[in-house]
Amino acid sequence: MQVGSYLEKVRQDQPLVHHITNWVTIYDCANIVKVFGASPVMAHAPEEAAAMTESLAGALVLNIGTLTKEVINAMILAGKAANRKGIPVVLDVCGAGATNFRNKQTRLLLKKVKIGILKGNASEIASVAGENVVTRGVDAVAVAKDLSILAVDLAEKMSLVVVITGREDIVADPRGAFYTVANGCEMMAHVVGTGCMATSVIGTFAAVATDWARAAAAGLACYEIAAELAAKKAKMAPGTFKTLLFDRVFSLTAREADKRAKVRE
Amino acid sequence: MQVGSYLEKVRQDQPLVHHITNWVTIYDCANIVKVFGASPVMAHAPEEAAAMTESLAGALVLNIGTLTKEVINAMILAGKAANRKGIPVVLDVCGAGATNFRNKQTRLLLKKVKIGILKGNASEIASVAGENVVTRGVDAVAVAKDLSILAVDLAEKMSLVVVITGREDIVADPRGAFYTVANGCEMMAHVVGTGCMATSVIGTFAAVATDWARAAAAGLACYEIAAELAAKKAKMAPGTFKTLLFDRVFSLTAREADKRAKVRE
Amino acid sequence: MQVGSYLEKVRQDQPLVHHITNWVTIYDCANIVKVFGASPVMAHAPEEAAAMTESLAGALVLNIGTLTKEVINAMILAGKAANRKGIPVVLDVCGAGATNFRNKQTRLLLKKVKIGILKGNASEIASVAGENVVTRGVDAVAVAKDLSILAVDLAEKMSLVVVITGREDIVADPRGAFYTVANGCEMMAHVVGTGCMATSVIGTFAAVATDWARAAAAGLACYEIAAELAAKKAKMAPGTFKTLLFDRVFSLTAREADKRAKVRE
Repeated sequence: MQVGSYLEKVRQDQPLVHHITNWVTIYDCANIVKVFGASPVMAHAPEEAAAMTESLAGALVLNIGTLTKEVINAMILAGKAANRKGIPVVLDVCGAGATNFRNKQTRLLLKKVKIGILKGNASEIASVAGENVVTRGVDAVAVAKDLSILAVDLAEKMSLVVVITGREDIVADPRGAFYTVANGCEMMAHVVGTGCMATSVIGTFAAVATDWARAAAAGLACYEIAAELAAKKAKMAPGTFKTLLFDRVFSLTAREADKRAKVRE
Repeated sequence: MQVGSYLEKVRQDQPLVHHITNWVTIYDCANIVKVFGASPVMAHAPEEAAAMTESLAGALVLNIGTLTKEVINAMILAGKAANRKGIPVVLDVCGAGATNFRNKQTRLLLKKVKIGILKGNASEIASVAGENVVTRGVDAVAVAKDLSILAVDLAEKMSLVVVITGREDIVADPRGAFYTVANGCEMMAHVVGTGCMATSVIGTFAAVATDWARAAAAGLACYEIAAELAAKKAKMAPGTFKTLLFDRVFSLTAREADKRAKVRE
Repeated sequence: MQVGSYLEKVRQDQPLVHHITNWVTIYDCANIVKVFGASPVMAHAPEEAAAMTESLAGALVLNIGTLTKEVINAMILAGKAANRKGIPVVLDVCGAGATNFRNKQTRLLLKKVKIGILKGNASEIASVAGENVVTRGVDAVAVAKDLSILAVDLAEKMSLVVVITGREDIVADPRGAFYTVANGCEMMAHVVGTGCMATSVIGTFAAVATDWARAAAAGLACYEIAAELAAKKAKMAPGTFKTLLFDRVFSLTAREADKRAKVRE
């Protein structure tokens, strides 16, 4: 699959990506969108969340990492605005499964807002799917069920794109399309924020495409290729790796992205 | 204009700069103040916002990037304390124009607090001035009116210092003084946080001066010279650029600042 | 004192460290835990704070840097859960002494939650001890009383471990054990977040030990040795220093930690 054309479209269209996200990685989420050439905006006040989405946003990214009731409320308001507008809503179910509150709020979001792309690691998505799974804080743990089947079933059942990140990312479309992305590197697991940034990237790419599953796969590939290039120089140094990740995203060419992409349909 | 003496005064006096700012760049705002040799403090609880300003602050920096009603309330409390004390209040109207809520809260702040320095990019300041302008999230878009005239008029009308950042920064004083700062580099536009940090720097420099417009110009020049030096090494790498920006601020000498400053009066 | 065995235990056990912390350094707190090989989780909603601690946390880290009443409430809920479970609660009294509100909330926390390790710089701990001291925002100022005596007295009186960070860190145990850690470097004082990260490290090490004072000393030593190694390369460059700090923590070996540790009992 060609991914470079998506990268070029992001840089050309420079979509505005509205985030309501967590307080830990909020800077990283904004900055990864920026270095991809797009435009991040973070706004969570209930009085303006919908208006910010309505006016100029090309996608809405929601991340429940440090959720509160007030923030979930803002997400619902912005989510409904995004639905009216027809732009993709990406939901990162960060830490889903860790507490009952988190599970309930996730279900509330899924009920009130038409999520376009549901994204998480294996245990988070399994938790949403109602599989018996132990989440350990925000880190993934082993899941019994085959992840591909889990993703395909959930995508169909919930009628949305399901993205499971991991050593090999899985993207399943409700209409049956299925992609795996085998890019990325070990160092991504050793630094905080790589998962949240992946979600922002998915939102950024989905903002400029009609096929959100393909866009998600293309975005993940580009982002993870930049990570590979960063790790090539940084080696086992997580601080340096993260700095270089932003550098490599910024300098990634469509040609290099196409050459290195490991996306299987 | 000599800017090095301001830099030396910041390092000597080490002013405490109280921030009530946004959750995206809050770390960067604190750290840029720190590497300039001053002392940042962030405190937004309504119960202590005024007390924190009253006790030891040399300046108050307000940034509405991720405003909520609660945070605006804390800003008003701290702003009034700063007014009683006579220390400069710098307001970054981050994202002004993007939503009605943002515009209303900005007007409320300007009404309740005597702002000393109003800072934004072209579209944000134009929005505050009531010009017909489209803000795109927190990023600047083109403005029809001549920015120098806009700044001078607004400074006089609102009786405060107006700073418009851009390729060439504009600083207009209500008494008619006018400065442009032609330092800085392209890379500043490709990384999140450079605008918010500029505001923190303005607050830091204004804290040690009586002429806030001159101090703002001097602070911008020093900060942007450090950015130039960082970009010289980082080239087109935004992650590395940002890391080096902190390095270069820390190591900037008054002599080098004076040599490289492009401030016109 | 041998510190390498603690480092190895952290990497082996990978404890989950639940934080309710400030919005300035929240990313750094999470990331330092991560690069030490453990697992950070940040959750401050009152509805889940206790549940997050109860389920899988090995330690609870509280930091009042940007406290609000709501956040203090969540800290109390999580703190009580930690007490029921018997895991260490580390409290960073960031900025204690700066405002009455901060002092009152600190006292409230100390009353409602059995704190295991109280951590601050000299002026913050002196403030908690009721010494006459001036705190300047969140930065330390001179304290008259001998810090070792202050720590020992406070540890006994409050029946908890007291950690005072500074050029030489002091760790005092309520049962009379006493440690000093002479590692670290000047650059740590020139970048925002090193103090908050130290607290997260203490929590991480205490999570895998029964003797919390020894664990705190070992954690501080390992962290500060990494800082020394980072400064060796970064020299006087705070941006680069901070990036390398994460690198050096990640690559620190138990052997090197033991060789360089300057912990006195």
